[in-house]
Amino acid sequence: MFDTIIYKNRRKALLEKMRAEGQSGVILLIGNAEAPAQYKDNCYKWRQDSTWLYFLGLDEPLMAAVLDIDNGQETLYADDVDIDDIIWMGPQPSVASKAALCGISAYKPYGQLEKDIRDARKAGRKVHYINPSRYFNTLKLMKLIGCENIGERVSEPLIKAIISLRLIKEDIEIEAIDAACDLGVEMHSAARDAIKIGIVEQDIVGKMESVALAKGWGVSFPTILTQHGETLHNHLHDKVIEPGKLMVIDAGVESNLHYASDFTRTYPTSGKFTPMQRDVYQIVYECNEHAFSLTRPGITYREVHLATARKMLEGLSALGLVKGDLDEMVAAGIAGLFQPHGLGHNMGLDVHDMEDLGENLVGYDPGQTRAKQLGLGSLRMARKLVPGHVITDEPGIYFIPALIEKFKKEGLGKDFVNYSKLEAYYNFGGIRLEDDVLVTPDGARRLGHSRLPIAPADVEAAMAK
Amino acid sequence: MFDTIIYKNRRKALLEKMRAEGQSGVILLIGNAEAPAQYKDNCYKWRQDSTWLYFLGLDEPLMAAVLDIDNGQETLYADDVDIDDIIWMGPQPSVASKAALCGISAYKPYGQLEKDIRDARKAGRKVHYINPSRYFNTLKLMKLIGCENIGERVSEPLIKAIISLRLIKEDIEIEAIDAACDLGVEMHSAARDAIKIGIVEQDIVGKMESVALAKGWGVSFPTILTQHGETLHNHLHDKVIEPGKLMVIDAGVESNLHYASDFTRTYPTSGKFTPMQRDVYQIVYECNEHAFSLTRPGITYREVHLATARKMLEGLSALGLVKGDLDEMVAAGIAGLFQPHGLGHNMGLDVHDMEDLGENLVGYDPGQTRAKQLGLGSLRMARKLVPGHVITDEPGIYFIPALIEKFKKEGLGKDFVNYSKLEAYYNFGGIRLEDDVLVTPDGARRLGHSRLPIAPADVEAAMAK
Repeated sequence: MFDTIIYKNRRKALLEKMRAEGQSGVILLIGNAEAPAQYKDNCYKWRQDSTWLYFLGLDEPLMAAVLDIDNGQETLYADDVDIDDIIWMGPQPSVASKAALCGISAYKPYGQLEKDIRDARKAGRKVHYINPSRYFNTLKLMKLIGCENIGERVSEPLIKAIISLRLIKEDIEIEAIDAACDLGVEMHSAARDAIKIGIVEQDIVGKMESVALAKGWGVSFPTILTQHGETLHNHLHDKVIEPGKLMVIDAGVESNLHYASDFTRTYPTSGKFTPMQRDVYQIVYECNEHAFSLTRPGITYREVHLATARKMLEGLSALGLVKGDLDEMVAAGIAGLFQPHGLGHNMGLDVHDMEDLGENLVGYDPGQTRAKQLGLGSLRMARKLVPGHVITDEPGIYFIPALIEKFKKEGLGKDFVNYSKLEAYYNFGGIRLEDDVLVTPDGARRLGHSRLPIAPADVEAAMAK
Repeated sequence: MFDTIIYKNRRKALLEKMRAEGQSGVILLIGNAEAPAQYKDNCYKWRQDSTWLYFLGLDEPLMAAVLDIDNGQETLYADDVDIDDIIWMGPQPSVASKAALCGISAYKPYGQLEKDIRDARKAGRKVHYINPSRYFNTLKLMKLIGCENIGERVSEPLIKAIISLRLIKEDIEIEAIDAACDLGVEMHSAARDAIKIGIVEQDIVGKMESVALAKGWGVSFPTILTQHGETLHNHLHDKVIEPGKLMVIDAGVESNLHYASDFTRTYPTSGKFTPMQRDVYQIVYECNEHAFSLTRPGITYREVHLATARKMLEGLSALGLVKGDLDEMVAAGIAGLFQPHGLGHNMGLDVHDMEDLGENLVGYDPGQTRAKQLGLGSLRMARKLVPGHVITDEPGIYFIPALIEKFKKEGLGKDFVNYSKLEAYYNFGGIRLEDDVLVTPDGARRLGHSRLPIAPADVEAAMAK
């Protein structure tokens, strides 16, 4: 974890923001429990709640904290270990020393939380809490708050205050994200080097994830590694690698400090793009570069998304797959047929940062409303950019037969889309190219100390090594 | 998954067992949902519930089944995908075809389950369900059954019927476990080859788990890889490997069919045991062999545990660490000071098979009661052995300073334990040696087609390669 002062300052800022919004009462933060994979004692790899990590840093299960908005009192709830725990888990630091690590002076047994929350509520005090991101936390909140629909009573002022803090990355966080990106580059390089006709995709996944496990916490989300890139979230890796295909690898490393990286590259399985693949790849590559060139304080990421969509339609026009006025096509949402997702999302302690706090609260400024259109409607980050935003830049072009057939059947985009020509692309798959980007005072910087090869010639050169 | 007939036969046997016990009503089986790691859409690697896998085999989230004990009717609850799902997850087989795969003819939307269970309960029918192993299933059952303490209403007849089936492995399962063990041997070999003074433990974890990910589902439980083997469940891997230490590696692979393996080996980090290490290692090795030699139908695993404890005390006597009559020491539980865990557990689709159904119901015959003694009290499998049992054989000797000090302070074992001599072992660490074993009609067979080196000379030879 970071130095104590980091966590103290963050909590202080949180309490000040709540007071500035006229809020009173207490803030209840709940750390994660272990998540059973099979039975209760065989758990997935331990992962703490991100908001907890941000404000307290303590990376162990079954803790809670109550922060008093009115008098600034902070209390940590956690249990000291007994001899049984020592046998199974080894000597552990005391709760007192853990509290000291995050700069909290008062601590109580975990079991005391229920009574304290009940007492606070009896005394008419507001208990502010955020959306639980795990089923355990849902159950815990149901018990603490004493009602079934705990989701309806989350504190929007608290959520907004947390978002406003976590959205702007501190220098120490940017350093941590740079390090996670460096690991991400190393992992992707290992994957690229492992691509080989005739092996099973899962083989590459094993080789690449070993980097994430050896040097970081693990992967920052379930790896997408597929010759069916047109399926956006394809987590199957059971296919044999065939020549002439495109392999989409969308994967990231979560560092031991729990900051994420998230990159996507698309490789020709044979090492060289076919002319058809290269044409489409070039468009996506230019979209990625174009989005980055526009990224700077003052522009909204919604504007960057739309400008990138226009760029994409320009390229698709040149291939004869769409036709007509570019602005009209952008307005009609034609780009969504080819890229049914948004240009990017916030990234930090979560790979989609703070998504559990509400996509729109995280990614949209007050006054911005989320579109319904395919593609733009999936944009997770639309805000006006400010220095300290960490976002992804991930345009993609996919040929999804079911979606194309649906559009065609319903007459969608019939004035713009050359459906007959599209049929030749039904086995094409998809291409996505993703970098992680920091908004700086005078523009933007790609995160990580080196960039994965992305220009078509560079990709082919890297694969030839 | 296996052939349809396997699942049909298992469900048929389950219904017959319930009827034979005079039970009526319906059996409710709930498949897992995805388990969020961070926010709700960033999940841990998908893992189906093991009991669900056993009876239905379908390896996807958000399914349920109702089996009617009285008329044999079986219904699958699951949803077909829409165009949004196709964009994100690709074309999916229909619910109809999934139902056919596991041999069920009737299927309904997932959302229909709530009404059907309510109707069954209104009609006065008993709804049999098992302990939920995940928080999601707890929440789901609370909703379906309409009460908070759903754990109190689990169906013991159903639990016992499931245990009686899953406990005796079919030939097809033994084949699957053999395959998981082969992967486990491959993974452990990669780990052994990676041990090197000066690197961080996590580095080895990455290298070894890549085997699990490349060829199986992943590891079958969080890897234990530590130079502090005296901590039984040590999941930290942050230590630099030092010369002269003992490295305990307790890890297994879960195959793509979701059967587990679970092996432990202990290595001298320098490649050669010190005389002190070799003396203790030899005892644990002989205990492992002794337990295996006793394993056969008719003996209880409790008896094997106790005979192994006696063997261990014999060895420790020879080292002068304990003294006195061996049988008296066994009865006094002195072995528990050195091995505070049981000799082994059942293994199958779960690495501690069916632990969510209740350790005692799974591991103890009617009439057997669980001891309170340290060590024997942690024995998870005590039953009389019958052909088809798959169990682990995992004796260990640990020198846990906090535990020794506690015994000493409380005067425990003062007639038997040579406490002054034990002080020289406070930095020793621990040794555990574990194989997976099938009980056969005429004895036992170690699972997997080859055995990891275990005799001290063989271990040193393997490390010298």
